[in-house]
Amino acid sequence: MSITISGNATRRVKAALAAVEAVDRPEIWIMLRSAEDLLEEAASIDAAVASGADLPLAGLLLAVKNNVDVAGIPTTAACPGFAYTPEKDAEAVARLRAAGALVLGATNLDQFATGLVGTRSPYGAVRDSRRPGFISGGSSSGSAVAVALGLADLAIGTDTAGSGRVPAGLQGIVGIKPTLDVVSTAGVVPACRSWDTVTIFARHLATAELAMGVMAGGSRAWPADVRLAAPERPRVAYPATLPPLPEAWAAEFHRNVDRLKVLGVEAEAIDFDDFLQAARLLYDGGLVAERYAAVGGFLDGALFHGADGATEGRAGIDPTVAGIIRAAGTVPAHQYVADTARLEELKGRAMARLEGFDALLVPTAPFHPTLEEVAADPVGVNSLMGTYTNFCNLFDLCAVAVPAGDVDGAQFGLTVVGRTFDDAVAADIARRIETTPAAPQLFAAGAAPEAKAEARHPSSSVPWPLAAGAVAVPLVVVGAHRKGQPLAPQLEELGALWDGPVRTAARYRMVALDTVPPKPGVYRSDDGAQLAGERWLVSEAGLGAFLAALPEPMLLGSLQLSDGTSAVGFACDAVAAAGGEDITAWGDWLADRSVQPRPRTVWQDLGEAALAGFSRGERG
Amino acid sequence: MSITISGNATRRVKAALAAVEAVDRPEIWIMLRSAEDLLEEAASIDAAVASGADLPLAGLLLAVKNNVDVAGIPTTAACPGFAYTPEKDAEAVARLRAAGALVLGATNLDQFATGLVGTRSPYGAVRDSRRPGFISGGSSSGSAVAVALGLADLAIGTDTAGSGRVPAGLQGIVGIKPTLDVVSTAGVVPACRSWDTVTIFARHLATAELAMGVMAGGSRAWPADVRLAAPERPRVAYPATLPPLPEAWAAEFHRNVDRLKVLGVEAEAIDFDDFLQAARLLYDGGLVAERYAAVGGFLDGALFHGADGATEGRAGIDPTVAGIIRAAGTVPAHQYVADTARLEELKGRAMARLEGFDALLVPTAPFHPTLEEVAADPVGVNSLMGTYTNFCNLFDLCAVAVPAGDVDGAQFGLTVVGRTFDDAVAADIARRIETTPAAPQLFAAGAAPEAKAEARHPSSSVPWPLAAGAVAVPLVVVGAHRKGQPLAPQLEELGALWDGPVRTAARYRMVALDTVPPKPGVYRSDDGAQLAGERWLVSEAGLGAFLAALPEPMLLGSLQLSDGTSAVGFACDAVAAAGGEDITAWGDWLADRSVQPRPRTVWQDLGEAALAGFSRGERG
Repeated sequence: MSITISGNATRRVKAALAAVEAVDRPEIWIMLRSAEDLLEEAASIDAAVASGADLPLAGLLLAVKNNVDVAGIPTTAACPGFAYTPEKDAEAVARLRAAGALVLGATNLDQFATGLVGTRSPYGAVRDSRRPGFISGGSSSGSAVAVALGLADLAIGTDTAGSGRVPAGLQGIVGIKPTLDVVSTAGVVPACRSWDTVTIFARHLATAELAMGVMAGGSRAWPADVRLAAPERPRVAYPATLPPLPEAWAAEFHRNVDRLKVLGVEAEAIDFDDFLQAARLLYDGGLVAERYAAVGGFLDGALFHGADGATEGRAGIDPTVAGIIRAAGTVPAHQYVADTARLEELKGRAMARLEGFDALLVPTAPFHPTLEEVAADPVGVNSLMGTYTNFCNLFDLCAVAVPAGDVDGAQFGLTVVGRTFDDAVAADIARRIETTPAAPQLFAAGAAPEAKAEARHPSSSVPWPLAAGAVAVPLVVVGAHRKGQPLAPQLEELGALWDGPVRTAARYRMVALDTVPPKPGVYRSDDGAQLAGERWLVSEAGLGAFLAALPEPMLLGSLQLSDGTSAVGFACDAVAAAGGEDITAWGDWLADRSVQPRPRTVWQDLGEAALAGFSRGERG
Repeated sequence: MSITISGNATRRVKAALAAVEAVDRPEIWIMLRSAEDLLEEAASIDAAVASGADLPLAGLLLAVKNNVDVAGIPTTAACPGFAYTPEKDAEAVARLRAAGALVLGATNLDQFATGLVGTRSPYGAVRDSRRPGFISGGSSSGSAVAVALGLADLAIGTDTAGSGRVPAGLQGIVGIKPTLDVVSTAGVVPACRSWDTVTIFARHLATAELAMGVMAGGSRAWPADVRLAAPERPRVAYPATLPPLPEAWAAEFHRNVDRLKVLGVEAEAIDFDDFLQAARLLYDGGLVAERYAAVGGFLDGALFHGADGATEGRAGIDPTVAGIIRAAGTVPAHQYVADTARLEELKGRAMARLEGFDALLVPTAPFHPTLEEVAADPVGVNSLMGTYTNFCNLFDLCAVAVPAGDVDGAQFGLTVVGRTFDDAVAADIARRIETTPAAPQLFAAGAAPEAKAEARHPSSSVPWPLAAGAVAVPLVVVGAHRKGQPLAPQLEELGALWDGPVRTAARYRMVALDTVPPKPGVYRSDDGAQLAGERWLVSEAGLGAFLAALPEPMLLGSLQLSDGTSAVGFACDAVAAAGGEDITAWGDWLADRSVQPRPRTVWQDLGEAALAGFSRGERG
C-alpha cells in the first residue's frame, strides 16, 4: 500500500479542520476535538492501514450527536448542567471506531433529543446548511448539518419521533433509522427508551449502509425469514392525503411517485388516518411519560435549587424542553397503559393497511420553517414536523430517508418506511429513489476527497443487515430462476437478494428438461464442465420454504463453484437426467440455443460414471 | 356411526349434572347453564356427529372462567356490580365450541383475576378438590376444581402471574399457559393486558394440547424457526435454591429431578435470583398500574357512590382486591416506565442463565395453604404463591404445569417453562414428567366416560402449536438421520419432531454410500422399490439451515410416499449413485445387513433409465 494512501486519514482530518473554520458554523459542535488529538489518531489509522489492517471505514470522519457517549468527551445532551464524562464509547461509536472511523467531535441537538427543529439548545440554534435563516431540523441537528456541509462523512444521530430523519430530509442527505434495538442503545442518553434508536447520516446511501453494517449487530436478533431485498417490482403504499404539506411540496411528492412508477415501482394510495392518530398519541397522550422517566429526575433536581429560575438558567435548561418533560412527570401510569393499548389497536389497523405492500412512502418533513417561525410557535411547528415520522418507532417500523429533489429553494426528502426487520427492503427501495446527492455546499481546498470506503462502494447494493448478522444462504441457479427468467419471482417473494453471476466448478453436466417453463437439469459428473449461473442470497426460512415447494425432478444440494467455494445449488434426479437432451456444451442455459448441443448421450455419461464408481469400489 | 356414540354428548351432560349435584361445591360456579339448555346443545352436537361432522372436541365438557365472555352469560369477573352480558363468545371460547366442546357454565375466580388463592370472591372461597379446608389456588379457581373433580373435561383459565398454573398445581391437573398473544384475548376482561394469557386446564396433557391447538391460532404469528419438539435428551435448568419451599416439598422436587435424569433429561441447577427479582417487581413496583388501567375506572365509580362502603358492598367488591387496584391508580407513569426498563434488564440476565438449556423446571406452587392461613394474611400468602409463576409472563415465556406426585397429603406440581414460542418444547418435556393423573375424586354413576377426543388421543404426541398454525415441513429420511441413528441429533437441534415410520412409493433405488457415518443413497428409478423411512417435521428455517449444511453427495427434493403424499426427502447425486453398491433389495437401510443385496448393477439401472428417457423423448 502506498504512502499516499496511508496518509489518507491525516489529509482528510486537515481538510476537515480547515473546512470547519471556513464554514463558520460554531453551533454545529458542542465539542470539537483538538487538532492535535485528531491528527494523532489519524496517524495511527494511517499506520494501521499501511500495515495491512482491514478497516472498512478507514479515514471516514464521524460526528457524534452529544447524547451518545464518546470516551473522554462530556455527554451533555445539550444541557450543560447534565454533563457527565463517559469512560467508554457507546457501543455504536465503539463499533464504528474499531472499523477505522475517526470521531471529529460531539454535535449539537435539541436538548435531551426533545424536538424536531434544532433550535432548542443553549449551544445555539443550528441553522440550515444552505439558507441560514431556516432551521436545520432536529433533534440530530449538528450531526445532519456537519454531513450536509461535508465536514463529516458520517454522523451518528438518534431517532425517537423523527430526529434521525427530519434533519436528513431538510439537509438533503441520507438518514437510516433501523428497526428498534438492532443497534445497541448502550451509552445513549434515553429520550423515550421504548422507542429510541441510534441512526446514521451520510451523503450517500451506500456509505450510510456500510456504516450501519458495522454499527449494528446483535442487540435484537434478525428473524429466520428476514427479507434481504425488495422484489424487482416492489409495491409501495403512500398516503392518499398529505395533511400539512404546502401545494408545491405535495406536487414534488407526487412527481416522485410518478418517477418511481416509471422505474417499475407499483405505488398505490392508502388511508393514512391510523398512522396520523398514532403520531398524535405521542405528543398528546401518556406516552410522553417516557421522557420524564429518562431525565425527569435530573430536571427536578436542577429546578428544585432555583425557584427564581437562576439555577435553571445555570444548568442551561431549555424552557420549552423543560416544560414538556415537567408535564410528562404528572402522567398517571394507568393512562400510559391505556394509551399503549390504544397504540396497539392503531398499529393493528395500520399494518392491515400495509398488507400486500413492500413499504410505505412518505415525505420526510412536511415543509421547511424559518428560525423565526419556530420561535413564534415552538411547540406547534415542532408537532407538525413529526407528521410523517412520529408513528414509525411507535409501530416498530424501520425507515430510510433519502434526498429526492428541491422545492421552493428547500431540499425535499422522501422516506421509505419498512416493516419490522425489513431494513434491507426499505434500503433497496430507497436506492431507487436516491437522486445524485448535492455536493457539500462549502468545502475548503482539499477537503472531502473520497475516503476508502466511499470510493470502494460508490453504488454498493449490499444490504447492511447482512453485515449486521442477518443469516443468508447462497443459492446458485442456472436456469429459470435467474434474474428476469420466469421463476425468479419465486425467490423475490422470499426476499432473496440477487448476488450476481457465478460459474460452477468443471464437474457438472446439464440436460434440457421437458418442463413448463423449460428448465435445465444439472447433475454431477466425472466428465463435467463449468456452467454459468447466478447466486441469490436467501434467508434460512426462505430456503426451507423454497425446498418444500420444489417439484420433482428438481433437487437441491451442495454445488461447487469455480472459485472453490460451495453454495446450495440445483440438481435434477436420475430419471430426469437420463431423459433430457444433453446441453452441457452450451455452458450457459441462456446461451444462444441454436448452438448445436454436444451429441453425446446421457446414457454414455451415466454408464461411464457408474463404471468409474465400480472400479473405485473394487479398489476400496 | 352408531346411535350409542351419537348420544355421547347427551350422556356426558346428564352425568356431569348429576356429578355437579353430588360433589356439592356450589362455589365453583358463578353461573351453571340450565339442564334444558345443556341437553338441547348436547343433542345438536350429537346430531352433528351422527351426520358426520368432524368435531375434534365433540362432547368434551368445558367450564369457562367468568372473566371470559360466553354469549348470553353475564361476565362478572367475580364482581356482581361489574357484570355485563356479552352478545358473543370470546375468541377462545368460540373456537372450542366450534370444535364441539360444550360450555357447562361460568366459573368462580379471584375477583378481576387478582389473586393466586381462590378466596377473593363474593361468590365464596373455592375449596381444594380433595381437602375442603385448603384453598383451590387461583385466580382460575372454579375452572381448576371443576376439572379436578371430573365435572368438566376442559376449563378455560387466564394467567397473568400464575392464575392458570398455581391452581393446576394444587389441584393435580394440567395447565397450559401459552406464549403471550398466541391465543387471542378478545372477549377477556383484562387483568394486566400486557401480560394476560388465556389458558386451558385438563386432567391429561394430551387433552389440554388438543384443546390448545383448537383455541390458539393467529393473534401472534409463530416464527419461521419455531421448534416443534425437545431433543431426545433435553437439558433443563432448575433453581439452585428453592426459597419458600417446605423441606418435604423441596425433597419432592428433587425426587422429580432425579426421576427425569433417569429418563434421559439432563438437569442442572442455576442461580434463580433474577427470576425472583422480576416476580417481586410485579407486586412491589409500578407494573401493577396495569390492573388499575383495566378496571380502575369501574372501581372508582363504584366507590365514589358509597363513602360508607355500602355501594362497595352492593357491587360485591372484594376489599383485598379493591385495595390492590386502588393503590395501583396512584402509580406515576414514569415509575412504570422505569420498572419496565428494570424488567428488561432482569430478563436479559435471566435469559443468559437459560442459555444452552431447553427449558426451566420449577415447582408450580411453593406449598398448599389452608383457607385460614390465607384469611390471616391475604396479601402475604398470595405473594408467596406466585414465587415460581410471576416472572413467566413478564419475561414472555410459556409454561406447562403438570401433576408430579403427592407430598404431605397435598398434590405436588411441576412447571416446565419454555422460551417465547417454545410451547411445543415445553409440552414435550412436560410429557415426560406427567405422572398418571389422579382419577377425579368424585363422579356420579356414568360420569366422565372418555369423550371422543380423550379416547382418541390418550397419549398424543402432536404438539399443539402445529394445530395452531406453526408451519412445519415434512422431511423423510431413510438412513443416518433416523431416530437413534448417528445424525438424528442434527434434526433434534433444529427442533424437528419425529413423526413416525413411512414407506416411499415403489420408485426409488438405494445404494450404500462410502461415507462416515455410512449412509444410504437414494435415487429415483423407473425400476424402483418401496423403501422404509421415517418422517420428521421441521420448521422452514430449520429445513433451510439443514440444507445449507448438507454435504455432497446428498441432495433434497420432493419424494413420493406409498400413501400418495409427498414430502421433502433425500436423494444422492449421480456420481454417488453410480459408485455405491445397490442395496435396494434390503428395503430398509436398518434391515439385517447380512442379507445379500440384489446382484443387479447400478450401471444396468441407470442405463435402462436413460434409454427409457430417450424413447419418451422420441415420442414427445
